[in-house]
Amino acid sequence: MSRYVFDFIDGNKDLKDLLGGKGANLAEMTRMGLPVPPGFTVTTDACREYLHTGRLPGGLLDEVEEHLRLVEARLGRRLGDPAEPLLLSVRSGGKFSMPGMMETILDIGLNDTTVRGLARRSGDDRFAWDSYRRLIQMFGRTVHGIPGDLFEAEFADGADPRELVETFKKIFAAYTGHDFPQSPHEQLYSAISAVFTSWNADRAVLYRRQEGIPQDLGTAVTVMAMVFGNHGDRSGTGVAFTRDPATGRRGAYGDYLPDAQGEDVVAGIRNTVGLDELARLDPASHVQLLAVMEKLERRYRDLCDIEFTIEDGKLWMLQTRVGKRTPAAAFVIAAQLVEEGTITLDEALRRVTGEQLAHLMFPVFDPVSAPEPVTTGVAASPGAAVGAIVFDSAAAVAAPGPVILVRHETNPDDLPGMIAAQGILTARGGKTSHAAVVARGMGKTCVCGADEAVVDAVAGTLTIGGTVLRAGDVISLDGTDGKVYAGAVPVRPSRVARFFEGELASADDPLVSAVRRLLGHAGEVARLEVHANADTAADAARARRFGATGVGLCRTEHMFLGARRELVERLILADTDQERTAALDALLPLQRDDFTALFAAMDGLPVTVRLIDPPLHEFLPPLEELTARVARAEALGEPAGDDARLLAAVRRMHEQNPMLGLRGVRLGLVVPGLFAMQVRAVAEAAAARVAAGGNPRPEIMVPLVGTIQELDLVRAEALRILSGIPLAPPIRIGTMIEVPRAALTAGEIARSADFFSFGTNDLTQMTWGFSRDDVEGAFFGRYLDLGVFTASPFETLDRTGVGQLVRIAVDRGRATRPDLTIGVCGEHGGDPASVRFFHEAGLDYVSCSPYRIPIARLEAARATLGDGASSDTR
Amino acid sequence: MSRYVFDFIDGNKDLKDLLGGKGANLAEMTRMGLPVPPGFTVTTDACREYLHTGRLPGGLLDEVEEHLRLVEARLGRRLGDPAEPLLLSVRSGGKFSMPGMMETILDIGLNDTTVRGLARRSGDDRFAWDSYRRLIQMFGRTVHGIPGDLFEAEFADGADPRELVETFKKIFAAYTGHDFPQSPHEQLYSAISAVFTSWNADRAVLYRRQEGIPQDLGTAVTVMAMVFGNHGDRSGTGVAFTRDPATGRRGAYGDYLPDAQGEDVVAGIRNTVGLDELARLDPASHVQLLAVMEKLERRYRDLCDIEFTIEDGKLWMLQTRVGKRTPAAAFVIAAQLVEEGTITLDEALRRVTGEQLAHLMFPVFDPVSAPEPVTTGVAASPGAAVGAIVFDSAAAVAAPGPVILVRHETNPDDLPGMIAAQGILTARGGKTSHAAVVARGMGKTCVCGADEAVVDAVAGTLTIGGTVLRAGDVISLDGTDGKVYAGAVPVRPSRVARFFEGELASADDPLVSAVRRLLGHAGEVARLEVHANADTAADAARARRFGATGVGLCRTEHMFLGARRELVERLILADTDQERTAALDALLPLQRDDFTALFAAMDGLPVTVRLIDPPLHEFLPPLEELTARVARAEALGEPAGDDARLLAAVRRMHEQNPMLGLRGVRLGLVVPGLFAMQVRAVAEAAAARVAAGGNPRPEIMVPLVGTIQELDLVRAEALRILSGIPLAPPIRIGTMIEVPRAALTAGEIARSADFFSFGTNDLTQMTWGFSRDDVEGAFFGRYLDLGVFTASPFETLDRTGVGQLVRIAVDRGRATRPDLTIGVCGEHGGDPASVRFFHEAGLDYVSCSPYRIPIARLEAARATLGDGASSDTR
Repeated sequence: MSRYVFDFIDGNKDLKDLLGGKGANLAEMTRMGLPVPPGFTVTTDACREYLHTGRLPGGLLDEVEEHLRLVEARLGRRLGDPAEPLLLSVRSGGKFSMPGMMETILDIGLNDTTVRGLARRSGDDRFAWDSYRRLIQMFGRTVHGIPGDLFEAEFADGADPRELVETFKKIFAAYTGHDFPQSPHEQLYSAISAVFTSWNADRAVLYRRQEGIPQDLGTAVTVMAMVFGNHGDRSGTGVAFTRDPATGRRGAYGDYLPDAQGEDVVAGIRNTVGLDELARLDPASHVQLLAVMEKLERRYRDLCDIEFTIEDGKLWMLQTRVGKRTPAAAFVIAAQLVEEGTITLDEALRRVTGEQLAHLMFPVFDPVSAPEPVTTGVAASPGAAVGAIVFDSAAAVAAPGPVILVRHETNPDDLPGMIAAQGILTARGGKTSHAAVVARGMGKTCVCGADEAVVDAVAGTLTIGGTVLRAGDVISLDGTDGKVYAGAVPVRPSRVARFFEGELASADDPLVSAVRRLLGHAGEVARLEVHANADTAADAARARRFGATGVGLCRTEHMFLGARRELVERLILADTDQERTAALDALLPLQRDDFTALFAAMDGLPVTVRLIDPPLHEFLPPLEELTARVARAEALGEPAGDDARLLAAVRRMHEQNPMLGLRGVRLGLVVPGLFAMQVRAVAEAAAARVAAGGNPRPEIMVPLVGTIQELDLVRAEALRILSGIPLAPPIRIGTMIEVPRAALTAGEIARSADFFSFGTNDLTQMTWGFSRDDVEGAFFGRYLDLGVFTASPFETLDRTGVGQLVRIAVDRGRATRPDLTIGVCGEHGGDPASVRFFHEAGLDYVSCSPYRIPIARLEAARATLGDGASSDTR
Repeated sequence: MSRYVFDFIDGNKDLKDLLGGKGANLAEMTRMGLPVPPGFTVTTDACREYLHTGRLPGGLLDEVEEHLRLVEARLGRRLGDPAEPLLLSVRSGGKFSMPGMMETILDIGLNDTTVRGLARRSGDDRFAWDSYRRLIQMFGRTVHGIPGDLFEAEFADGADPRELVETFKKIFAAYTGHDFPQSPHEQLYSAISAVFTSWNADRAVLYRRQEGIPQDLGTAVTVMAMVFGNHGDRSGTGVAFTRDPATGRRGAYGDYLPDAQGEDVVAGIRNTVGLDELARLDPASHVQLLAVMEKLERRYRDLCDIEFTIEDGKLWMLQTRVGKRTPAAAFVIAAQLVEEGTITLDEALRRVTGEQLAHLMFPVFDPVSAPEPVTTGVAASPGAAVGAIVFDSAAAVAAPGPVILVRHETNPDDLPGMIAAQGILTARGGKTSHAAVVARGMGKTCVCGADEAVVDAVAGTLTIGGTVLRAGDVISLDGTDGKVYAGAVPVRPSRVARFFEGELASADDPLVSAVRRLLGHAGEVARLEVHANADTAADAARARRFGATGVGLCRTEHMFLGARRELVERLILADTDQERTAALDALLPLQRDDFTALFAAMDGLPVTVRLIDPPLHEFLPPLEELTARVARAEALGEPAGDDARLLAAVRRMHEQNPMLGLRGVRLGLVVPGLFAMQVRAVAEAAAARVAAGGNPRPEIMVPLVGTIQELDLVRAEALRILSGIPLAPPIRIGTMIEVPRAALTAGEIARSADFFSFGTNDLTQMTWGFSRDDVEGAFFGRYLDLGVFTASPFETLDRTGVGQLVRIAVDRGRATRPDLTIGVCGEHGGDPASVRFFHEAGLDYVSCSPYRIPIARLEAARATLGDGASSDTR
């Protein structure tokens, strides 16, 4: 009984764990009766045993010989036969595709004798010796690690392959200390061992670490009889897709290269031709190929890509798999397959991902018209933006036309400018920098961390290499690939985004129509609700158009910016209760009006208002700026006046680690009247809406709670205020869970909370002990390189660490209060993999920025459908 | 059957939960046959039911009447009897003493009729009416909340008590709307209800919140027949201790006030006399009192304090309890009781606490000679320090005589000055500020947060109110009570500290002898080992003298200060690998020498070396300072030179939240060669010690690990280096557990760690989401006031939150690796309550600053002894 080796006829496509993707699909095609060269697969079990013990498993070679005899019998050729030599290819193939990690050795079986047999049988001397040359080279590299350039240095155009074989054999002997093995069986065994060993090569280990592929899977080895596309006019090789992988258009699509081997296609030495040309060159094979592709699509119920070879007019299938495709094609094909009755709508949802939808929502540059980029930064927020350079927020706001805000890095003061600009370019910061996070929240194009760029805001220059750009010069940013262009590149708008905005009907566009159909179904399937992070009535209205069923986070501090900043300064600098009360009294009607508009936009849906969270000193000018201004004034003997007074306040309030300072609920308990003013504004706004016949559903959320005592105190004060406002509807009071201690003591905290909302940004910061603002530039890149992270924990929730706290809080919170509503309002709420986790953890809703809502809705549905859908595309 | 009321004869001292401390001890004395006035106690059960339902439990009053009849029968007097009126006292008394929370109503039973009976029976008209006046006043205040000043306003010296009664009755009627109740039974019932209600008075709730006493215990009510010490010469009242509570000296000790009631003693209107004087005045009562006290000591097996009254030559015991005592007395008495054969050494350890020992280790001011303090700050680190004012580190180091370092607040640059100074005074910061933490670590006196003080280092003045002190002026700091004195106050050194330093034999001093005996026993009993946080050989040597059995934390960054800072600057500013390597090469021998000396001082004991932890920019001048310097230079048109270059580096490395930035293991993975240099220095130093015949036992500890991948990378590099140094002994490699994620994933991390050491400072910061440096001044005071905290979580480990992570890490770490060594090296390692927690959590050792070692050893022993020992003295 065979334990380690499966003939192609004994496997099928569902045995990827054991046979690898390549082996499983070859087996499937063989069982379907398609023309696959005979062969067999050595299993991943054998590889794991080899890696564990350092030797091939006992009995393996006997099994290999046994299966080899079957192959020989089928073809009537024998390995090592001087007259009719069988040649073999040996390829690696794990469960997951590892591009560039693949080991391949072709033409195994050639030696000084069989090469002559091959020459005679093929009638092509040069072909035979060239194949032998290739074998020595590939075998030398793969089995013995002989550097490729040792061979390539000897390789000249038009060289005699017979002489090259001699030279290569010498190189081989010199490097390894022994002659190139003449035994075809020994060649085969060594090739199998070498493929196994390659699993633990440095670059393979690193790749898996970075991709999060387990290190203990092992690879399978596929051994297949060689066929040759380089046998003249009636031979050739090609790749094909069953539908267009770029657009999803129905109908086979492919490239064919006559008189060539597969590696020649990859090398791109000659231009390929279309399948139409194959129809002309070899109509029979073309017809047969189309029939094969149709069968494959029916079997795989999806777009397939294939590799094929035609040898002397005979078609051979060398590989197939479910094909990669563009995001647009993914949606179009899924919808087509539903229409064709091939798959269900549920299945169609499993075939598309939130990441794909995200890419479809942003405008793109016309690839044909784009010049060479001047630099490439981090693709922080997708989209295509064109505008004139501005270096500060004021200029962005004042500019008459579209602008690109260019900053060394951004901070909250740049918010108006970011809102006004088409796109943001920064020289510093990565995917989780302030610029990146805020831009993604706004759905605005952003390229950040373009570290070749030097931004001198004072001089008004953006210098990249030798190019100096000035304010007013037009640049173009591609947020999808991080490219920066000088000048204007033509842009195509996203039809999908226009559809969600309600600007476009779907009927005439296959992509929009597909998105509409799948998102419609997603809305019916999803268990998780999707709310929006929205601070203004305009944001809320857009979020509603995008499908939000509530506001999960309204950040009230954003209502304190702009002209209102002066009121906050008055609050901070207040020396007496009277002054403080006056400042709060002035803020109250402004906040109330904001809330009234917000509740109107979200009428009938819940709106979760978070009480003020950031440290108050964020509303004052930066310490460094004031220090420099006062020092300058003093040096020149001028009066520093207001600056000195502000400096004193800033210095008094300065914190070494503001993230860990006086903010959130701490502010509420320390600054008398601050939370009370906000609670009153919410309640009065709700009462006003009720009076106007509306249906406001506000909720009040307390940030940064670490212990139930804090929440009890705020809740008691809030209830006292609410009870004094007769028309106010019932208002639920809940808490953020964003401090590890809150998660750990969630069982207690739930006694005073009507709902929980995870603030996963802060929770990630505190659980890991690093701050988003500081560490990304400093070491995230290095950590990704080293494989410490496979993704930034600020982009995709860290299930292993932070996820434990989420589960602890959910379990303990619900144990105390089974009807506790639980959501999440961090950036993770719009991240596909994280949405899946929140579904699994039993949350009631995710809340994310308006542009991420369709993505979250799609992923919520896919999560509900369960294991069949994977949010990664590995 | 009685459910809610216990006659004194039916209770005993172990029923504190049910009868409160007062009721239980009165019952004990009654059972012992001591002369206690008859009475009974209403239980805490009744109180809890009253608080829950809002009414006295059904049947309670019947029970009260039944027990009242027993009291009446015993005394032959009846409540409300016109001729022989029984009078009662009603007192609150919970399980835990709540000073100032106690409610008392005396003389219940007086009304317009019985007051005349009392006058007749006592033959003292004035006494009877004055008692009635007292009843109206106490009853009005306690039962009806009538403000005391309403009564006191009417109260004049020599006023006729009969007229006062009339006036007070009018006040009572005006305030309550009804007349003072004439029914003695109604008085009694109302008094009992009022005591129950007082449990939930605001100040009582707040007190319990701050002291961590559960809010649901309820209070008992003790009802006792009144006896009168104000009946002339043969009467009187007093308090006494069975030994001297200040020194522990054997023999009764007390105060007596002839012809007075207990409240007169408390009011301190007249001077008391000693017990000797009682012996002269009333020899029989004196003899009886001494006999009673001897019986009580035998029964309680400890120092007792008592309240007694003599009425017409008859002694009555009104209260007893195990007496409060000074720290010195606690040790002396415990040792005496062992000598006397009354208690075992184990029991003696249960009778003393680490906090008491801490107080004994510091010098104290002679209380007699101290003038009025000029201000009082936070008592941050105990001790008494006298010296001349200096305003900066350089002056402190240069000063010829003892100095006090006075700063607005301190930072790591002040370290040399803090080392040189006798004491530290700061205007800002609380018990967990930098100054406080470092001072406690050094065992150095510190008063911080003296917020009336204005420190102007430039002008060289310390202004407190109207007083202006200058550099060179002498001040005295009392770190035990936070008092600051102008001028020199005489100081007594701590004999206990001198004993630990080895400067003093114990034989001739009862305190030192007691400490030696108890600490010796602690060393035999304790399961937890006690290691030291020590960065230098000198620290290590002292730690050894103090009883440390290893170094649990050697902070290598402290080796980068002073002159070596320049090497760190070179490392940071290095532009090339070569420059960086040169800087590291220069640091290597310096670190190696430091380690060699340290290993020599700790020969044979483990020394845990932590790789560098703080962000490198901490070694550069502060951003603000450089900014101002450069701005000033630019304004004046001068070249900024080096400052500008440093500013650029500081700005590049500036972090918004350095606590959450590039530090710890992150530094090690980002700065090539940094950890490698340190590992090499440790290994080479150990090899040198081995070569010299020593027995070095170094361990290497990686800080701030959040995921096993980080530790794996560092461990692999370290093992590679260690394997290249032949003479180096085996060196264990472990990790700090100080990031919440490390605790949550401890099961994984243990696979690569030979030991864990909790960094509870960082763990507390990240679990709560606040930084020690920032928040204490900002809101800890308010949080303590509000009862959110009962102690700073930086002083005493937060069991509820942080403690969960500790337990998770211990459980999961040991599940992976049963022989994992686990310790703690945060400040909590020297805190008594925290030591107990670490014992319970199953740690192997605590590590703390040298001066806390005896304290930790004592508490480790007490923790081993278990529940009988409580680390708080409530």
